[in-house]
Amino acid sequence: MAEVTARTEAFSDGIFAIAITLLILDIHPPHAGDTSGLWNALAAQWPSYFAFALSFFVILVTWINHHELLRLVRADSRRVQLANGLLLFYVASVPFPTAVLASHLAGAEIIPAVTLYCGTFVVGSLAWRLLFATIERDHLFRTEVDAQTIRHISRSMWIGLWIHVAAALLAQVQPWLALALVAGVRLFFLHLSYEAVSSVFGRRDRHNP
Amino acid sequence: MAEVTARTEAFSDGIFAIAITLLILDIHPPHAGDTSGLWNALAAQWPSYFAFALSFFVILVTWINHHELLRLVRADSRRVQLANGLLLFYVASVPFPTAVLASHLAGAEIIPAVTLYCGTFVVGSLAWRLLFATIERDHLFRTEVDAQTIRHISRSMWIGLWIHVAAALLAQVQPWLALALVAGVRLFFLHLSYEAVSSVFGRRDRHNP
Amino acid sequence: MAEVTARTEAFSDGIFAIAITLLILDIHPPHAGDTSGLWNALAAQWPSYFAFALSFFVILVTWINHHELLRLVRADSRRVQLANGLLLFYVASVPFPTAVLASHLAGAEIIPAVTLYCGTFVVGSLAWRLLFATIERDHLFRTEVDAQTIRHISRSMWIGLWIHVAAALLAQVQPWLALALVAGVRLFFLHLSYEAVSSVFGRRDRHNP
Amino acid sequence: MAEVTARTEAFSDGIFAIAITLLILDIHPPHAGDTSGLWNALAAQWPSYFAFALSFFVILVTWINHHELLRLVRADSRRVQLANGLLLFYVASVPFPTAVLASHLAGAEIIPAVTLYCGTFVVGSLAWRLLFATIERDHLFRTEVDAQTIRHISRSMWIGLWIHVAAALLAQVQPWLALALVAGVRLFFLHLSYEAVSSVFGRRDRHNP
Repeated sequence: MAEVTARTEAFSDGIFAIAITLLILDIHPPHAGDTSGLWNALAAQWPSYFAFALSFFVILVTWINHHELLRLVRADSRRVQLANGLLLFYVASVPFPTAVLASHLAGAEIIPAVTLYCGTFVVGSLAWRLLFATIERDHLFRTEVDAQTIRHISRSMWIGLWIHVAAALLAQVQPWLALALVAGVRLFFLHLSYEAVSSVFGRRDRHNP
Repeated sequence: MAEVTARTEAFSDGIFAIAITLLILDIHPPHAGDTSGLWNALAAQWPSYFAFALSFFVILVTWINHHELLRLVRADSRRVQLANGLLLFYVASVPFPTAVLASHLAGAEIIPAVTLYCGTFVVGSLAWRLLFATIERDHLFRTEVDAQTIRHISRSMWIGLWIHVAAALLAQVQPWLALALVAGVRLFFLHLSYEAVSSVFGRRDRHNP
Repeated sequence: MAEVTARTEAFSDGIFAIAITLLILDIHPPHAGDTSGLWNALAAQWPSYFAFALSFFVILVTWINHHELLRLVRADSRRVQLANGLLLFYVASVPFPTAVLASHLAGAEIIPAVTLYCGTFVVGSLAWRLLFATIERDHLFRTEVDAQTIRHISRSMWIGLWIHVAAALLAQVQPWLALALVAGVRLFFLHLSYEAVSSVFGRRDRHNP
Repeated sequence: MAEVTARTEAFSDGIFAIAITLLILDIHPPHAGDTSGLWNALAAQWPSYFAFALSFFVILVTWINHHELLRLVRADSRRVQLANGLLLFYVASVPFPTAVLASHLAGAEIIPAVTLYCGTFVVGSLAWRLLFATIERDHLFRTEVDAQTIRHISRSMWIGLWIHVAAALLAQVQPWLALALVAGVRLFFLHLSYEAVSSVFGRRDRHNP
């Protein structure tokens, strides 16, 4: 049964790893002939570094959550592969809103750039929700996964969706606060999803004092 | 025996994952100083988003089909590796016709761009067909795979080839309809190939109500 | 023991898969406003398609040979990891001489471009030779691998090296013939290395009539 | 237990493999119309080749060290995944200081370029140190790993950190010597970390005369 999801995991891990690493291609070295000096030219690129670090963190947490979710799954189906494909579509597209964010963070159009960035995660949250609902519908959770854990994960996905909608709205007035919300909700995801998994696998499996 | 194909699968998964993720590199952020505003500049790039989404879907379905086909195979041979290499050559080349499509979809030369795009899948269908024929010739299908399943897959590959030829011809008069055909045939592939595999592994293995 | 080389194989497969897929990034779509028409503009890029196809074939055969060689190895050592790293350095660098070839194949400077391209494979042959010698020195071949097979592989590596040196020299007078030699020697590698492996694993393992 | 870290290893291997292969994208073919001849134009790009080779070597050794460290680990935790994520952030960012180095190595601003490059490894050393401390804190080393081995690895990480700080300072007066130090410390890492691992797994497992 594990074999059934093995290639899905390998393909997903590949896409996560590539999307997260391609982010660096958007940071270009300053031109050699710049008169302001290399340090100044490097410092002027701070929006690119900020966008790179933020999106790296976002994709890393998405990968951790994906890893945790698939640990609860015993097999995949065609529908799960397609729902997972939609999630990977969202992950693979992250470098584009990141590049838009980097090129407008210090400019006059920061609001549309941050709105696009937050909107990407609204779509991403819907993809997560669809993947979860598809696994549930096809009865593919491991038998050890009880109804309470499933409700727990489901609720945290709804919370994630609404927080991202809130971030997209907040971006209209306070774009930096919206970005802080996007980062902050990941800390919440890290905590919540750990809770769900540890209630299934218990402390035998890990050492987390 | 499973070990024999393990690295072929890993190498193939890598190429699928990279080709599908590289597609995003063709979508560039609008220039910061654009006078029409960021939303207008983003909206003007709709051909790039369309081409990205379409090719992502095409490569995703190709990966699912590849995954399904290799599940029926018990070992690989040098010839299978070369035929698989030709299929991967087609997959790795998809970003190029996608970029051509994106840059001409809204222009006067949409017909040659869509013809090139559909033509890529004619070549791809021939590569699929060659891989299938090579597996059959080297007697590498698992013993559980009966003659009827093999005929079934073979027929769906021929249908796929002729539909892509039809799409390339249709592109001369109705390019958008040709693109709809390219997308639609994937839904057919998803259904057909699922049928073939479930007749081998049965319902014990999966939960697809 | 198999576990010891598993991550080396995964890392190597990743680099092979990425290098072979990055080749496509060097083929750019013609500019939308080109007055000569899209088909003419696409046709004018034939050196890029040729270089892409040739290097794809070269890396594919290199991957097959790497796969075959590591099947004969029971464990890796630090020295093997470094020698393998040198081989991967060569593989990862192939996109650069390929790009040089593509941009000069139709120009006045075809001779230096083909010389650089062939020279890359001289370096690659030395990296292969070093990897092989390191595996042998550290006694890491499986016990089933007899001295004759090792001599056989060793001889084919020397032949490969001298053919690439010959190709680099031939490039000074007949660059197209040198490229044909680079492609032709891969057919020889495919045949030879299959012979070596089948003498170890025999016909039980595969069906190659 | 091995399964728990399997996807972490696969994801890490993916990022290492992609970061090391993307380095080549920074080396562009000289323009076809260059009047100085192709060989001269190729020779003028020596800083790019140097930076590519140096960073390839650095990432290769980082991968070997990562591979060795994870062999000593029996399971991962959320905290380990995050600390590993920080290390991967450093690995994924290496192409940027490499590109800066390549574009300034032959120019007037070599000192800031080399300082940035060495500074990257100071951050990288801190990430290593954090990953190590997190594994230790969560008691995730295999039981065979004795306190002496852990002290040994810990000490070599501190040495690595201070050597990189020294390289960043040395870059202010002798940038080339600083780069030599960055390369040289990798030879030291290769030797040290081999020592640590062989004391755990012994000679039964490998053949390193």
